[in-house]
Amino acid sequence: MYEFPHECIIKRMTLRIAVAGASGYAGGEVLRLLLSHPGVVDGSLEIGALTAGGSAGTRLGQHHPNLLPLADRVIEESSPEILAQHDVVFLGLPHGYSAAIAEALPDSTLIIDCGADFRLTNAADWEKFYGSPHAGTWPYGMPELPGARQTLTGARRIAVPGCYPTATSLAMAPAVAAGIVEPQITIVAVTGASGAGKTLRTDLLASEVMGSARAYGVGGAHRHNPEITQNLQALTDEAVTVSFTPVLAPMARGILATCVAPTSVTEAQAREVYEAAYGDEPFVHLLPVGQIPQTSAVVGSNAVHLSVHVDETAKKLVVVSAIDNLTKGTAGGAVQSMNIALGLPETAGLTTIGVAP
Amino acid sequence: MYEFPHECIIKRMTLRIAVAGASGYAGGEVLRLLLSHPGVVDGSLEIGALTAGGSAGTRLGQHHPNLLPLADRVIEESSPEILAQHDVVFLGLPHGYSAAIAEALPDSTLIIDCGADFRLTNAADWEKFYGSPHAGTWPYGMPELPGARQTLTGARRIAVPGCYPTATSLAMAPAVAAGIVEPQITIVAVTGASGAGKTLRTDLLASEVMGSARAYGVGGAHRHNPEITQNLQALTDEAVTVSFTPVLAPMARGILATCVAPTSVTEAQAREVYEAAYGDEPFVHLLPVGQIPQTSAVVGSNAVHLSVHVDETAKKLVVVSAIDNLTKGTAGGAVQSMNIALGLPETAGLTTIGVAP
Amino acid sequence: MYEFPHECIIKRMTLRIAVAGASGYAGGEVLRLLLSHPGVVDGSLEIGALTAGGSAGTRLGQHHPNLLPLADRVIEESSPEILAQHDVVFLGLPHGYSAAIAEALPDSTLIIDCGADFRLTNAADWEKFYGSPHAGTWPYGMPELPGARQTLTGARRIAVPGCYPTATSLAMAPAVAAGIVEPQITIVAVTGASGAGKTLRTDLLASEVMGSARAYGVGGAHRHNPEITQNLQALTDEAVTVSFTPVLAPMARGILATCVAPTSVTEAQAREVYEAAYGDEPFVHLLPVGQIPQTSAVVGSNAVHLSVHVDETAKKLVVVSAIDNLTKGTAGGAVQSMNIALGLPETAGLTTIGVAP
Amino acid sequence: MYEFPHECIIKRMTLRIAVAGASGYAGGEVLRLLLSHPGVVDGSLEIGALTAGGSAGTRLGQHHPNLLPLADRVIEESSPEILAQHDVVFLGLPHGYSAAIAEALPDSTLIIDCGADFRLTNAADWEKFYGSPHAGTWPYGMPELPGARQTLTGARRIAVPGCYPTATSLAMAPAVAAGIVEPQITIVAVTGASGAGKTLRTDLLASEVMGSARAYGVGGAHRHNPEITQNLQALTDEAVTVSFTPVLAPMARGILATCVAPTSVTEAQAREVYEAAYGDEPFVHLLPVGQIPQTSAVVGSNAVHLSVHVDETAKKLVVVSAIDNLTKGTAGGAVQSMNIALGLPETAGLTTIGVAP
Repeated sequence: MYEFPHECIIKRMTLRIAVAGASGYAGGEVLRLLLSHPGVVDGSLEIGALTAGGSAGTRLGQHHPNLLPLADRVIEESSPEILAQHDVVFLGLPHGYSAAIAEALPDSTLIIDCGADFRLTNAADWEKFYGSPHAGTWPYGMPELPGARQTLTGARRIAVPGCYPTATSLAMAPAVAAGIVEPQITIVAVTGASGAGKTLRTDLLASEVMGSARAYGVGGAHRHNPEITQNLQALTDEAVTVSFTPVLAPMARGILATCVAPTSVTEAQAREVYEAAYGDEPFVHLLPVGQIPQTSAVVGSNAVHLSVHVDETAKKLVVVSAIDNLTKGTAGGAVQSMNIALGLPETAGLTTIGVAP
Repeated sequence: MYEFPHECIIKRMTLRIAVAGASGYAGGEVLRLLLSHPGVVDGSLEIGALTAGGSAGTRLGQHHPNLLPLADRVIEESSPEILAQHDVVFLGLPHGYSAAIAEALPDSTLIIDCGADFRLTNAADWEKFYGSPHAGTWPYGMPELPGARQTLTGARRIAVPGCYPTATSLAMAPAVAAGIVEPQITIVAVTGASGAGKTLRTDLLASEVMGSARAYGVGGAHRHNPEITQNLQALTDEAVTVSFTPVLAPMARGILATCVAPTSVTEAQAREVYEAAYGDEPFVHLLPVGQIPQTSAVVGSNAVHLSVHVDETAKKLVVVSAIDNLTKGTAGGAVQSMNIALGLPETAGLTTIGVAP
Repeated sequence: MYEFPHECIIKRMTLRIAVAGASGYAGGEVLRLLLSHPGVVDGSLEIGALTAGGSAGTRLGQHHPNLLPLADRVIEESSPEILAQHDVVFLGLPHGYSAAIAEALPDSTLIIDCGADFRLTNAADWEKFYGSPHAGTWPYGMPELPGARQTLTGARRIAVPGCYPTATSLAMAPAVAAGIVEPQITIVAVTGASGAGKTLRTDLLASEVMGSARAYGVGGAHRHNPEITQNLQALTDEAVTVSFTPVLAPMARGILATCVAPTSVTEAQAREVYEAAYGDEPFVHLLPVGQIPQTSAVVGSNAVHLSVHVDETAKKLVVVSAIDNLTKGTAGGAVQSMNIALGLPETAGLTTIGVAP
Repeated sequence: MYEFPHECIIKRMTLRIAVAGASGYAGGEVLRLLLSHPGVVDGSLEIGALTAGGSAGTRLGQHHPNLLPLADRVIEESSPEILAQHDVVFLGLPHGYSAAIAEALPDSTLIIDCGADFRLTNAADWEKFYGSPHAGTWPYGMPELPGARQTLTGARRIAVPGCYPTATSLAMAPAVAAGIVEPQITIVAVTGASGAGKTLRTDLLASEVMGSARAYGVGGAHRHNPEITQNLQALTDEAVTVSFTPVLAPMARGILATCVAPTSVTEAQAREVYEAAYGDEPFVHLLPVGQIPQTSAVVGSNAVHLSVHVDETAKKLVVVSAIDNLTKGTAGGAVQSMNIALGLPETAGLTTIGVAP
């Protein structure tokens, strides 16, 4: 009988994880979560290469002084050769880079793409909103959507959902799936500035953002529009429309989404639908009657807070949801999907406890 | 022929203005605007008594250190006797106080109520949302609504609109009046914390508000709901419904309202309607194509910034508006109405220039 | 040989922890940390009664929606009877309450007082700054000060240091102890609003705090003044003076302290002193040359970030420190001391990883 | 007798003002103040060319949506030819550009440089802190310093002080001039982000700044260090040293400076010195005993708020000052100096009323 030499056994037991785009906000949040992941703590997972483009050669501590245990790690180039030496690769890159990296890595590498490239199923939507050829579609990392958990089990390619699609799809999915609304949905979602990434743009400067709220991508122009529609359209035969308006507010983290659709049910009936949909979910939490989500309650956590209301005068269902855009909206969702793909406990390394005030 | 002695002539020419609730945010903003009002500068208007409840006997500078020229004024009790010695009385009080004060003052006194008591025409709405008997209805201080300017000319009682009704009614009035939308309107409006007044509530503490967005009054519960509906219903024979969700964001001033309604017109057609409606208005400004309102641009100003969008996929008109809730949304609107009532230039003491960044 | 019956063994193994003042910020942060404490996770520690004054009878979720696992816990009255049923009692109360509670509890109960009552050794200082009789002095929960760790081992009464004394004493202790400065120290420390607690005061309202910096307690009036002096005076025979000015900045958490004293050493010499003092400390971290502390890097963490500078023109040592006032500055320091007192690993339940951005 | 033709008379009566760097924060604030300047309102001053580097060809409204009356003005190139057609030229440029522009303009043009180039008298200081050859020294635009007003009267070249030197020199000048302190001064000044200009730097992104305080330029490295020392050294024969630490706080505007020096006088004596120094100054205001400056009170205003304290235990004078860094700290100081230079009322177009909350 053949035996692995000892070093190989050891090697097989420890999965090495690389994070590409480690100097950015998504990459930093993946690292923050991994550092507390029980797999990293017990050594079955190992944080390997941290790579980036322009920041290669610098210390991680210059970019993320909050990640003290990794402060002295030096960032490497995001080359396929380096990434290929890992079992799990998180991509926290601008869209357009993932396809080439994925092609250069073995099929057995678990690639978890925090970018948009492989989220949309409809090539025309992709091309209209992103202006480049469609790269394809990967299993979609939103386990709470019907059927998604099975698709993620054992997956080796995962498209992490966008932050707005996470906050809004989870808010409306039960109502659409249960048919308690006409799926003509109006959404206004307030976001913190980190959703735009660590990007040098005048309109993201602190002086521009503080003390101000502003809408952007109004009128259906935001790239997350087709992704939200895709998620909700999959749940009903009726034609779904989504009017989505993002609003930038002066905070670093958090999305508060207000989602409205015509309904004829009562608030109690609507709550029942949501309790049934999310009663067993570890991260999606329907607040008790009278409590309304606030983003501070989910900062740093993977929780989704929801409240469900019916305006009986306007005949509208109003669902409010709060997430941390960097955690559940990006890196937490990514780790949750990694856990499922690797057969680890789904909640490992993730918490429902926020850092507040 | 009888002649007034000189001192009486002088006295007749100077209108004395009292501000009740001077220690609060509305009262403070009225004073800030009055201090730069050309009438106050040239002496034809005079800032008389500053009154308040719990703060009587204290220096104004303790409450509004920004109002240096009035810092040493001592706040008096809000008694009818004191207020009756003035020609113009601004009320910046919680609702429920205005009726008694108004009864105690002569009909010739111009009373400008920044509170809600006299805004609603429908007594049942008042009682449902405010839980007390309806006090009546006064001319409504939103000159830009059809017919409002005439009603305000020479008026001696004025109900200053609520801050949300200002931001949202001006955003949707042209579309509703022109019939280019189905008046089933969904509104989400982000506000700064000063909209809640200088009120000692745990949820208004800095640590609770900073770094967080939260909705409140969801599902039709907010008191500004019937006021918005009233304003828009007056413009159409179709039944108007308004789903209104306010969201508190971490900023001191500003409202950014996103207003959505089904439409079948194009964006160009919609812009024409707004250009026609507001082309001559000194304070309502339709931004050029491609520019979207941000609240920092209107801080301290009486301007309303609007952008008009049509989402052709969702078939929705989306109008975004920005105001300073304390200026155009309260004290600026109040001064604008005072100017009209007194026959002064409507824009006196008001500016379209914001303090930014 | 005598054997404990099984239930007693179980009972002996699980220490029950009560938190008095659970609805406040200090209490909430203690609970946030305990929820992730390995002792709570493995069952050797148990979160028992949550008590408070005015909030008794309400759900914890109303006060701390971020603490989802405890949201349905009902807050009890802070009675000695309830607290006496616990092995460890955290007190997150205004000063003046601890002495009476401590007298009512057995000597064997570990009481960890986040308030000020037992911090000062000098009764005259206490009476001057707090205006009430001195209650006494307990072991001081700042393990990084010389000799403190031994005092805390096995202690059953612990006075948790103030937030400013934590940030500033740790910043200056090595320099004072090593005699590399004249101990005439000038400190200006910027704090977030949570340092003032969840207190209903007009000057803590969001609208007052946002967009503004203001000093308070200037000229030696702040209550943390004698505590800072006490900590540093213990390290030298020279007379220490401290000019301390706290500044409130628009953020929820964090203290950034700038500490200045005359020196004649070089920056390299000063760094050596700090490296020697803190090289083995798990939570105090001297940043590499060129990096300066920022409070966002320590949010939610128990870390202290320090940078050490010498201004050769002004002949001054300048030490900048950053802590999270609620974590290392209050609840984290409290848990760290609890760990030492109970013989648990000192870092259990605490992290050096901040939540940023 | 010779008569000017009519057009020349008109031309002589209207002074044309150009603003170079109009798309930046300093330039924008100059324009905001000029728009309300009585000279611009009555036509004796005229806002001429708005110029900039990279923004030439764009509408001003894209950069400063708050300046509605100028929104459609197109920004021109900052060429000497264009600037030379004006009587007054404000320069809101990075340092290093002013000298060349000044050489290209006639001596009769009033040039007001908001940059640093001509502030320092000591060439060695300039070269050490700015790394380039010293361009020279212009009259220094801080009228409240002894002798400065006379120098500015009729001046045609003015160096506008830095924002920190304004807040700190005015705070310490009376004490140093009166000899009531040992001039070994320690300063920590908290600033809003606009002080860094509209500069694309990662550390100025909203997500980095919000929720965080951080020091920078610690240990005597900040460029305003020699300027502060120069201002104070001019007032005494004793050798002045300044330890200056700037701290960035999450707000857009405002500087709060805490200035500390050894003293042996009482607080009452110190207040007398300040009352004597600033009793007649229109913009510098000593707050009444018990009131401490906060930056929100001076937002948008040209006021300087001061409080004076003596810590009798530490034997230190502590002076706290608050200014708006963009107004009194840059553009307001610039307009004030323009007024003096042109023989206009010094306070024209400036206010002591802040926009708060």
